[in-house]
Amino acid sequence: MQRIITSKDNGSIKLFQKLSAAKKYRTEYGMFPLEGLRLIKDAAAENAELHCVMITEGCMKKLSEHGEALDFLPERARERTLFISDELGERLASTEGTQGIFATCEAIDTSGISDAIKSNGRYIMLHNIQDPGNMGTVIRTADAMGINAVIAVNCCDVQSPKTVRATMGSLFRMKICVASADEAFAEFKEKNIISYAAVVGRDALSLTDCRFKDGSAVLIGNEGNGLPEEIIARCSHSLTIHMHGNVNSLNAATAASIIMWELTK
Amino acid sequence: MQRIITSKDNGSIKLFQKLSAAKKYRTEYGMFPLEGLRLIKDAAAENAELHCVMITEGCMKKLSEHGEALDFLPERARERTLFISDELGERLASTEGTQGIFATCEAIDTSGISDAIKSNGRYIMLHNIQDPGNMGTVIRTADAMGINAVIAVNCCDVQSPKTVRATMGSLFRMKICVASADEAFAEFKEKNIISYAAVVGRDALSLTDCRFKDGSAVLIGNEGNGLPEEIIARCSHSLTIHMHGNVNSLNAATAASIIMWELTK
Repeated sequence: MQRIITSKDNGSIKLFQKLSAAKKYRTEYGMFPLEGLRLIKDAAAENAELHCVMITEGCMKKLSEHGEALDFLPERARERTLFISDELGERLASTEGTQGIFATCEAIDTSGISDAIKSNGRYIMLHNIQDPGNMGTVIRTADAMGINAVIAVNCCDVQSPKTVRATMGSLFRMKICVASADEAFAEFKEKNIISYAAVVGRDALSLTDCRFKDGSAVLIGNEGNGLPEEIIARCSHSLTIHMHGNVNSLNAATAASIIMWELTK
Repeated sequence: MQRIITSKDNGSIKLFQKLSAAKKYRTEYGMFPLEGLRLIKDAAAENAELHCVMITEGCMKKLSEHGEALDFLPERARERTLFISDELGERLASTEGTQGIFATCEAIDTSGISDAIKSNGRYIMLHNIQDPGNMGTVIRTADAMGINAVIAVNCCDVQSPKTVRATMGSLFRMKICVASADEAFAEFKEKNIISYAAVVGRDALSLTDCRFKDGSAVLIGNEGNGLPEEIIARCSHSLTIHMHGNVNSLNAATAASIIMWELTK
């Protein structure tokens, strides 16, 4: 039987907590934290590099009751698995009713916009999206719709625990490029990508009339303020989802989802 | 100058806190709590009955700096407005950086499914949706899309603070019917409504091939488990959003939004 870690001063425990707490630590260590069986299985299935898996006694017991061992982990990660007390598990958990399995994972590569943008692709670009739930939902929907890459300009951290949870594993499958607006527009220009600014309540192309072709990108703006004028001005077109009655706007992730549906169907 | 309430034992303060805390109090008093200027303005604009508006000194000062008084309130509510200390405002707030305006509001009428369902309408029925954010987002999107009514069967409370916040005022504009599955299917039968069960990953009509007509309802199931078999069996058709790659499902509110877009466009 493996030794059970019980000390909150254990280095791996402290690292996991740091990675959960702040983007600066995720950047400093080039890692981010994962919690929950499904997410860690998804990471393993997509060959993400798991540095350290931590599993509580309670979780290990449940897994073996279900006849499951740690077979879903690659051998390297299995060898590095730490067993921790249930109490430490509670300390690491960011959700109620934690399953008791945690991992530190090598950061997703969010560079390479130049390789990611191809002249025949379909893209969504998020500008200043600040809600981690919206960010994660857009990544999940983009994956489901077959969008070729999500470009994130000036958004909240894509590797924060809340965003990662909302992506439901799509973080490991979807190409995400963190870039500046200048870099993105330079790629659009070079690859002849037609760019559409999603706007609300103004004279713009209606989404129902849009016939998207290969080589299109739609830009979605901040939850409260939408896209800034200077970004709208740089796009080839503006488009809008016509709304009924007194409604001012849709939730940013909802608008992005409906647009990605039309962009890819 | 009005008297400023500073005691946390004030009846209106205590009532607001009870209404925020639990559905049983909302049911007992037939009221629900509102927080924030925009939401209270929306409620007033849609003639919701505001029983008691509570406003902090800080909020009152800000409003008058912007040249705004309480003109957006109907006279009855204005007469009953209570001024409270900023400290009490902090105590009532459920969001960080509260604006300092609160109200107790007469419950929304969620009865009357028989009048709400008409033979030529388009409806969304939520079955066992448990996340207040999803619930509120669906109501907001339904309003934006011009859905005729949202039917909620066995869902979380539509008048909880989180749901109300996520509706962004659409709660006051959208007809919502809380009903049993039996009541809903009886109405569908009587009005010749074609019902579609939204399902994942099985042999079903693809949403891209659906030609919705007047007199249609789409059913969306629980976040984790989808619709139960017995509900699917009672529907005229099953429909699915075809997904790309390894993705198992969309967020429930995202799926509902894309479906409502197709249902009404």
